[in-house]
Amino acid sequence: MTGLTFGSAIDVSGSLEKSPSGKQNVELHAKQIQVTGKCDPTEFPFKIKERHSLEYIRQFPHLRCRTNVFSALLRVRSEATSAIQSFFKDNGFIQIHTPVITSNDCEGAGELFQVEPASRDKQQDERDPHYFSVPTYLTVSGQLHLEVMAGAFPAVYTFGPTFRAENSQSRRHLAEFYMVEAEISFTESLEDVMTVMEHLFKASTEHVLTHCAEDVELFHKFVAPGHRGQVDLMLSRKFNVISYTEAIDILNRSSQIFTFPTKWGCDLQTEHEKYLVKHCGNIPVFVTDYPYDLKPFYARDNQDHPRHTAAAVDLLVPGVGELCGGSLREERLEILRSRIIQAGMEDAYEWYLQLRQFGSVPHGGFGMGFERYLQCILGVDNIKDVIPFARFSHSCLL
Amino acid sequence: MTGLTFGSAIDVSGSLEKSPSGKQNVELHAKQIQVTGKCDPTEFPFKIKERHSLEYIRQFPHLRCRTNVFSALLRVRSEATSAIQSFFKDNGFIQIHTPVITSNDCEGAGELFQVEPASRDKQQDERDPHYFSVPTYLTVSGQLHLEVMAGAFPAVYTFGPTFRAENSQSRRHLAEFYMVEAEISFTESLEDVMTVMEHLFKASTEHVLTHCAEDVELFHKFVAPGHRGQVDLMLSRKFNVISYTEAIDILNRSSQIFTFPTKWGCDLQTEHEKYLVKHCGNIPVFVTDYPYDLKPFYARDNQDHPRHTAAAVDLLVPGVGELCGGSLREERLEILRSRIIQAGMEDAYEWYLQLRQFGSVPHGGFGMGFERYLQCILGVDNIKDVIPFARFSHSCLL
Repeated sequence: MTGLTFGSAIDVSGSLEKSPSGKQNVELHAKQIQVTGKCDPTEFPFKIKERHSLEYIRQFPHLRCRTNVFSALLRVRSEATSAIQSFFKDNGFIQIHTPVITSNDCEGAGELFQVEPASRDKQQDERDPHYFSVPTYLTVSGQLHLEVMAGAFPAVYTFGPTFRAENSQSRRHLAEFYMVEAEISFTESLEDVMTVMEHLFKASTEHVLTHCAEDVELFHKFVAPGHRGQVDLMLSRKFNVISYTEAIDILNRSSQIFTFPTKWGCDLQTEHEKYLVKHCGNIPVFVTDYPYDLKPFYARDNQDHPRHTAAAVDLLVPGVGELCGGSLREERLEILRSRIIQAGMEDAYEWYLQLRQFGSVPHGGFGMGFERYLQCILGVDNIKDVIPFARFSHSCLL
Repeated sequence: MTGLTFGSAIDVSGSLEKSPSGKQNVELHAKQIQVTGKCDPTEFPFKIKERHSLEYIRQFPHLRCRTNVFSALLRVRSEATSAIQSFFKDNGFIQIHTPVITSNDCEGAGELFQVEPASRDKQQDERDPHYFSVPTYLTVSGQLHLEVMAGAFPAVYTFGPTFRAENSQSRRHLAEFYMVEAEISFTESLEDVMTVMEHLFKASTEHVLTHCAEDVELFHKFVAPGHRGQVDLMLSRKFNVISYTEAIDILNRSSQIFTFPTKWGCDLQTEHEKYLVKHCGNIPVFVTDYPYDLKPFYARDNQDHPRHTAAAVDLLVPGVGELCGGSLREERLEILRSRIIQAGMEDAYEWYLQLRQFGSVPHGGFGMGFERYLQCILGVDNIKDVIPFARFSHSCLL
């Protein structure tokens, strides 16, 4: 038929019939085929029966959704989104839309994006140079806003975009990425937080494996052959739990030579995370109770010594390393106040202290990187291949 | 009990018993009460048994979720989010996370927020002054990115934050607000798009009324007395459909004196929208086929004359005015190309033209303002009272 080329859009009338071939269940017996939108195969960047690499199709962000592999990814991503939301809803969590634009700059200004109107004439309004009257940034985390809600609800979560203006070109970082964050009230135990993390991971993954079986299989067959075994292993075992102190011992006992120091008090690097996961038989592992000085001001003080730790936890998974980070939050007003004063932030965080001044509740929570989650279950090496439109240093196509 | 004041956090053990009172179903018979977090009632901004106004509690964005009315709002918002997602999932739509940061600036640079790293030293890198190598903005709509997906899936939607750097302080505008946007492939009829809009509105509202009955009742009793009748009316009737030309005739036949002109070719203003909804008996009304010159470049040309129109539609609802806007999209390459060239945008929209060059499909879609939707079903006058953290000109608290 004229015009019926690879990449064209067609309108077909006919009947679905049981297929005699073993390769598919049904086939379409066409009575009428009409070409709705033509496609010149010499100009179309994808070729019939050719398997293009993920790197190649990444150059065409407006067309790559038409490839088998990327349309499968987008269906999995949609289903995983839905699975995560169902998990929280079924467990009584309220969904909160935490803001994208914020006047908080808690996590170090170097990595923040600033926001101002494109056409604002600064000369015009010298006394009030900012649209919002204060400098504003794209959020790096919805946690503090979720903590507000922990004063009103037993459990809350948010699932939305977060931002880092990092210059890294790594396979695990984007300037715009999605985070799932949850906060649980009336808990004094890190185990409660870890239980939610593990259940979230397992319930969502089982849902995706069931409801997107064919799409997941495409990844486990062509993109990351053999990865299904790894996924099944993670689902079938209870996640490991070790303390940071034990993790340092394990690293120091190992025969592997690391680039970064493995002294108590140093942060774990990717090479350490990978070793620890392997040490745990490629089962995800929670690392708990990090050195107090490594963790942000809101992490709860364990008040131990001489090795002073905070009630914080990271979840490390095969291939990806750090997938989730969480902690109990410091709910004791005086301890929190003195730490905030020490950091010179008492003006900016007066509102945060008030959450503890008025009816403070012990609470804790965590965040999970959604793209890293997809990398982990599908076996995708580069984070740019699990998001519809990737934004990173020097690249913002469309 | 000492310390048990209004606003404190408490831990209660006891049993839930059937209540002898008609006012509630159950009551908690406490055996033990422990004050977890004290609250000094002289400093706490909310007072026991006082009904504070929405304006008053708005001053305390970190505490207002603890009031009855705002915690009810947040539960309704969470349930409505879930209802909208279920509606799309049940109808076969794939959820797409359209990007927040974009290099498109199609809707007029005056209203855009620009994004750059907070700490970027411009002197340092004169040849490449932008983090993304190009100027980047916060999205005003995910539509063009959804249209990309319409080339791969029968139906897609997105539900996320969108941004306008407007200086308006209206009761219907925010700088950061949520939009539900959908795109349907292989349709050549505006009716298909309107059907999805009407079903979405009705299915979501019915879900919320059923699953958040008590919370909705609080609004319909104390915030907008009598509003339930209005909601039931909207649900029970088929939405009206009139053309823009008919709308202009209705306005010109009316005895009401309008501030803005009602000549064919002029845009409808809020006063006109309100009149039209009232004229239609307070049932939502679709206004279709707007003057071609009023609509953006992507709206499909109806190729009629002498009154030249585009296949665009707005949904007007009581109280709020414009709730949704949609259109068929111009899928014909040559017509779209000449319009884009006319607007001098051919370089920026080469990728958009390629969607038509390679297997173009007739498609259409719409966007619905989520906060306006909540205002409409709850009867809330000010948009700042239906979002967890409101961002508008001169205000970005927390």
